[in-house]
Amino acid sequence: MTPPKAPAAPQSGPRDQILESTIHLMRQSGLSGAGINQILAHSGAPKGSMYYYFPGGKQQITSEALTLYGRRIADAFETALSSKNEPAGMIRALFRLIADRLEQGTFDQSCAAGAVVLDLGPEVGDIRNVVADVLASWRTVIARHLPMRSRDKRESFAGLVISAIEGGYILGRAERSTAPLLEAGAWLALLVKND
Amino acid sequence: MTPPKAPAAPQSGPRDQILESTIHLMRQSGLSGAGINQILAHSGAPKGSMYYYFPGGKQQITSEALTLYGRRIADAFETALSSKNEPAGMIRALFRLIADRLEQGTFDQSCAAGAVVLDLGPEVGDIRNVVADVLASWRTVIARHLPMRSRDKRESFAGLVISAIEGGYILGRAERSTAPLLEAGAWLALLVKND
Repeated sequence: MTPPKAPAAPQSGPRDQILESTIHLMRQSGLSGAGINQILAHSGAPKGSMYYYFPGGKQQITSEALTLYGRRIADAFETALSSKNEPAGMIRALFRLIADRLEQGTFDQSCAAGAVVLDLGPEVGDIRNVVADVLASWRTVIARHLPMRSRDKRESFAGLVISAIEGGYILGRAERSTAPLLEAGAWLALLVKND
Repeated sequence: MTPPKAPAAPQSGPRDQILESTIHLMRQSGLSGAGINQILAHSGAPKGSMYYYFPGGKQQITSEALTLYGRRIADAFETALSSKNEPAGMIRALFRLIADRLEQGTFDQSCAAGAVVLDLGPEVGDIRNVVADVLASWRTVIARHLPMRSRDKRESFAGLVISAIEGGYILGRAERSTAPLLEAGAWLALLVKND
């Protein structure tokens, strides 16, 4: 008997490369940094493949990249939160994760969702909704790990955590330092309580 | 005796209009939204006046606009913090001020400093320093009003407040809601203590 054939390993083709480059560029400077020409230059993908894989153009590429990025970060949040048994440690682990990401991106990369929101003109409703969905998914992941009895309090505190992360990225990039994120984590660890 | 002549009221000439338009555009979409052509279109200033008043071009306009914006917000912070006698009320007043600004800008305008930071490529060192100075000036204003005995704690908590404001703007624009800012203010009001 021949063993069943192993499924092919997922290949990183032009489609994936385009999405990864879009995420990279959005983390650096939002929508304005992720133009079609910049994505082509960064990914090395031929122009034809761009329109072949993404007939909806920049709107489609940006939406898919944000959604992929959102799931990846939700998974990273889940892992960080699950690594600790008590709430204060969870919060510190979450901010440590983000501080490490800021440092790995040499203080030039932050959160794609945050950078895109601050780039939106009044006309770009669709992308704003994609970002809102991403932020809501992160809020759900964080809230599920919080100890407060009231669901409203868990959701509200999770929102504060995300605000402090997004703003900590801004201060961290401006100061080229992880201190704003780590200090925010230490303060919020004092505030998270079983009540 | 003739009374001394009153000083002329400050006039809003093309120079001021250019700076105000730059602030408006940066609050909407950062550096990428505040190109020379966009500033001209928004301000109605003739192209010649742009180069007459700002021979350093976009770099000079952006730096001056950010500095002017920074002073204006520092003054608004000072007024909000001085309006209350106890720390929790001060923190809530600060976040109420920002929530009102977000609403007045119909959720399309946030903080010029934050939007500019998330637009920076690795090459734009000078503007990053201007933003870092603006953020540091706000930290000083807030820290001065905080009740903690330790200066380090006052500075650190002031940093958390600014992070929560910057991130609350991001969530607020994405959700078109003042709730993230007001909830962040309510949580941080619980955390600010005389110790």
